[in-house]
Amino acid sequence: MTAQRRDDISVNSDMGEALGLHTFGNDPALMPVIDVANVACGFHSGDPEAMDTTVALAKQHGVSVGAHPGLPDLVGFGRREMKLTPSEVESLIRYQVGALSGFLTKHDVPLSHIKPHGSLYGMLARDEELMLGAVKVARDYGVPVFGLAGTAHQRVAEREGVEFVGELYVDLNYNSEGGLIILRQPHETDPAAAAERTRRALETGTILSVDGTELAIDFGSICVHSDTANSVEVATAVRAVVDGR
Amino acid sequence: MTAQRRDDISVNSDMGEALGLHTFGNDPALMPVIDVANVACGFHSGDPEAMDTTVALAKQHGVSVGAHPGLPDLVGFGRREMKLTPSEVESLIRYQVGALSGFLTKHDVPLSHIKPHGSLYGMLARDEELMLGAVKVARDYGVPVFGLAGTAHQRVAEREGVEFVGELYVDLNYNSEGGLIILRQPHETDPAAAAERTRRALETGTILSVDGTELAIDFGSICVHSDTANSVEVATAVRAVVDGR
Amino acid sequence: MTAQRRDDISVNSDMGEALGLHTFGNDPALMPVIDVANVACGFHSGDPEAMDTTVALAKQHGVSVGAHPGLPDLVGFGRREMKLTPSEVESLIRYQVGALSGFLTKHDVPLSHIKPHGSLYGMLARDEELMLGAVKVARDYGVPVFGLAGTAHQRVAEREGVEFVGELYVDLNYNSEGGLIILRQPHETDPAAAAERTRRALETGTILSVDGTELAIDFGSICVHSDTANSVEVATAVRAVVDGR
Amino acid sequence: MTAQRRDDISVNSDMGEALGLHTFGNDPALMPVIDVANVACGFHSGDPEAMDTTVALAKQHGVSVGAHPGLPDLVGFGRREMKLTPSEVESLIRYQVGALSGFLTKHDVPLSHIKPHGSLYGMLARDEELMLGAVKVARDYGVPVFGLAGTAHQRVAEREGVEFVGELYVDLNYNSEGGLIILRQPHETDPAAAAERTRRALETGTILSVDGTELAIDFGSICVHSDTANSVEVATAVRAVVDGR
Repeated sequence: MTAQRRDDISVNSDMGEALGLHTFGNDPALMPVIDVANVACGFHSGDPEAMDTTVALAKQHGVSVGAHPGLPDLVGFGRREMKLTPSEVESLIRYQVGALSGFLTKHDVPLSHIKPHGSLYGMLARDEELMLGAVKVARDYGVPVFGLAGTAHQRVAEREGVEFVGELYVDLNYNSEGGLIILRQPHETDPAAAAERTRRALETGTILSVDGTELAIDFGSICVHSDTANSVEVATAVRAVVDGR
Repeated sequence: MTAQRRDDISVNSDMGEALGLHTFGNDPALMPVIDVANVACGFHSGDPEAMDTTVALAKQHGVSVGAHPGLPDLVGFGRREMKLTPSEVESLIRYQVGALSGFLTKHDVPLSHIKPHGSLYGMLARDEELMLGAVKVARDYGVPVFGLAGTAHQRVAEREGVEFVGELYVDLNYNSEGGLIILRQPHETDPAAAAERTRRALETGTILSVDGTELAIDFGSICVHSDTANSVEVATAVRAVVDGR
Repeated sequence: MTAQRRDDISVNSDMGEALGLHTFGNDPALMPVIDVANVACGFHSGDPEAMDTTVALAKQHGVSVGAHPGLPDLVGFGRREMKLTPSEVESLIRYQVGALSGFLTKHDVPLSHIKPHGSLYGMLARDEELMLGAVKVARDYGVPVFGLAGTAHQRVAEREGVEFVGELYVDLNYNSEGGLIILRQPHETDPAAAAERTRRALETGTILSVDGTELAIDFGSICVHSDTANSVEVATAVRAVVDGR
Repeated sequence: MTAQRRDDISVNSDMGEALGLHTFGNDPALMPVIDVANVACGFHSGDPEAMDTTVALAKQHGVSVGAHPGLPDLVGFGRREMKLTPSEVESLIRYQVGALSGFLTKHDVPLSHIKPHGSLYGMLARDEELMLGAVKVARDYGVPVFGLAGTAHQRVAEREGVEFVGELYVDLNYNSEGGLIILRQPHETDPAAAAERTRRALETGTILSVDGTELAIDFGSICVHSDTANSVEVATAVRAVVDGR
């Protein structure tokens, strides 16, 4: 119906999720389709060479670069929750954002935003004390945080005067309270379903939870994961909707 | 004889060489004695919390803070040489310097310099291609590199227009070519011998190699290691000589 | 009062908690005082060289050697809880017990037991599904598990036909339900208080919780931690009570 | 010409080179084609869950399982040479072989052999002191070592009374001295060329070096790497020649 270009909505994806020879392999095909890259910073994935390559690739495609700090757990890919103190959370975010800034300095690319990865994202959505660490780092760098509207992500950011960008997920399910159901293993998403969720969210401001509940969703960016085999198809389908095609 | 204060010569030490509960324990006692801290950045030692604490402690004592990037080898403490490409060396230095900058930003402390750690220091002294990576990062941050005069450290820095600060070591031996003999395990140094080497170097511009050869030494900073039990005594003895006491 | 030698009660301590140059430094002094060493296996602490040295040292002192597998978290020293699947818990215990067995084979020392470390110990005390992994590995190696009586440690071991050895802690506090209060940072214990807790437990089979509740305690081994400065004094005091001196 | 089945020659491949979500993805297709799996043990690749899965998969296909210990370097995939002491080499092999044995015990599969990985393989081929560590571990477990005939691999094994199995590589080039040219990045091999090298080696006992020199080659097993996209095609081509098809 709308088929109207939405320049106020960006498409973001997690990029640089590589470790040495290991990579999911979709970055070069995804970069032309997205607006914003969340770059892995070494703790859950992303070695220094991969970070350098990823920032260069993003720059080449005019894609904005944000930090995607994760829990210190390569084997678990940052998807195994850990009990950390607020100080530890702040320090590990600060370390990773700083590390990325080394490559941004090289390529003369500004830091765009901070988006916590995996279980850290979920932990910060539920715990204001932990979220405060991410917000402090974002404030020091003068960048927004990406997160889930209506959670501690938004509350702490806004309370502390840091810009907040809400996200819509098209390849994860929501529970009936609006929480994301984060899986350890990636699952393929039907590109048509992703497009449909995007269209509905843009037109009506709502999504459906996994049990059919209609949920209001407030967002400025749409996240497409890069670790599934068909991530390029999903991103392309979402892109088309956002572009009003 | 001179007993003359030398304000042009600094005393530097490797700080923040800790991992969780493990620490050498000398940092709080050394900070008041030194001018310049080389802070471990996580690859050979130094977790995010330790980096935060170390930068705060340095600031409190008015000590300058530089980055001390090392090889990615916690068990070997960065003292086991690795065969790396020039690109890998540049990227791992960039990553670690960036990571430290996250904590410098928090504490509003400027980056003072870059000094490679352990085997990386030795590798860069011998290989101009590898040293170029360190120099590029130093140039991007506008800071000097610390190193050994007369080696690739100095040649590449000066060729590329980056400030170079030569170091005198008082707790490592030199071979007859002026190269440092880096040991895997720290050895205690006699504070009187360290003071005597400092005095001789300041007065005559020479040191003695392990086999008695007299070597010219060009330096602007004196390094005292922090991982030996008596490092505070050694640093205090060197400090007294530099202060003309 | 009793002053009676208790040969049925062993004194155990966590040994080999080292990483390269970093060590708590108490192992050589503790080995002559204890009966049983729980050797760190590389995930929370303990590199391969340290494991080799520790097994050799234990053998030299006639100390039994068990595996002390921990969470994969060097910086947190295995004291930051992680959300793991039962399969992951079993595999990481199996990996670490196997790794230790490599050094036991070298020194011709039998595996004595398995005792999970830190937060893994606590997680398994509360969750039977997770504890089952440890019990399966213990059964495959034909050794007992050390743990807390009355928790999932004991229930699952006994249900599965694996020998269980209850532990008394003299340097950690118990809550009023008999659970251990595990701290991230080690705290010094008064040797006299450790001796008194030991004496009371041996004579009356009870201890006092942190709020003064009297708790029944069933144990065959007494654990003394090695990461505090005065651990040798604590162990010596406990040893004297157990020996009826 | 021969088209004669060679039951005395096995086909081996490196299996379990995975880390969490990252895998090269060829293991399930390669297992039915090979005789012998060299299983990654966690230092250059291979987390505990991957090791468990890989041993189970090998058993299901009747494939023998050996240990494939590597340098402690996940980012470099064990392909960046490190300067290690003989004692460190022995300990890191012992640790990794032991770790694998934990999963062999679970699945009731015997340890078949030890084959060092990547740069460790090359280091041991050139240095008898380092090779001695691998040989000692192999002797303790009563298994052969796989390696390059005519190098320290063979000399030390035979001197110490440990069985040696020479390998033929079909997807790496040899220099004119018979040394392997190990690359950091995998390169695809033409299956026909791999088959041709196998045929020539079986019929004439020679291979051609990268510059055309004819080299005598003594081998009992043929290695096919698993980290290239077409590794299944290469293995299948080699398999056909060995089977006399």
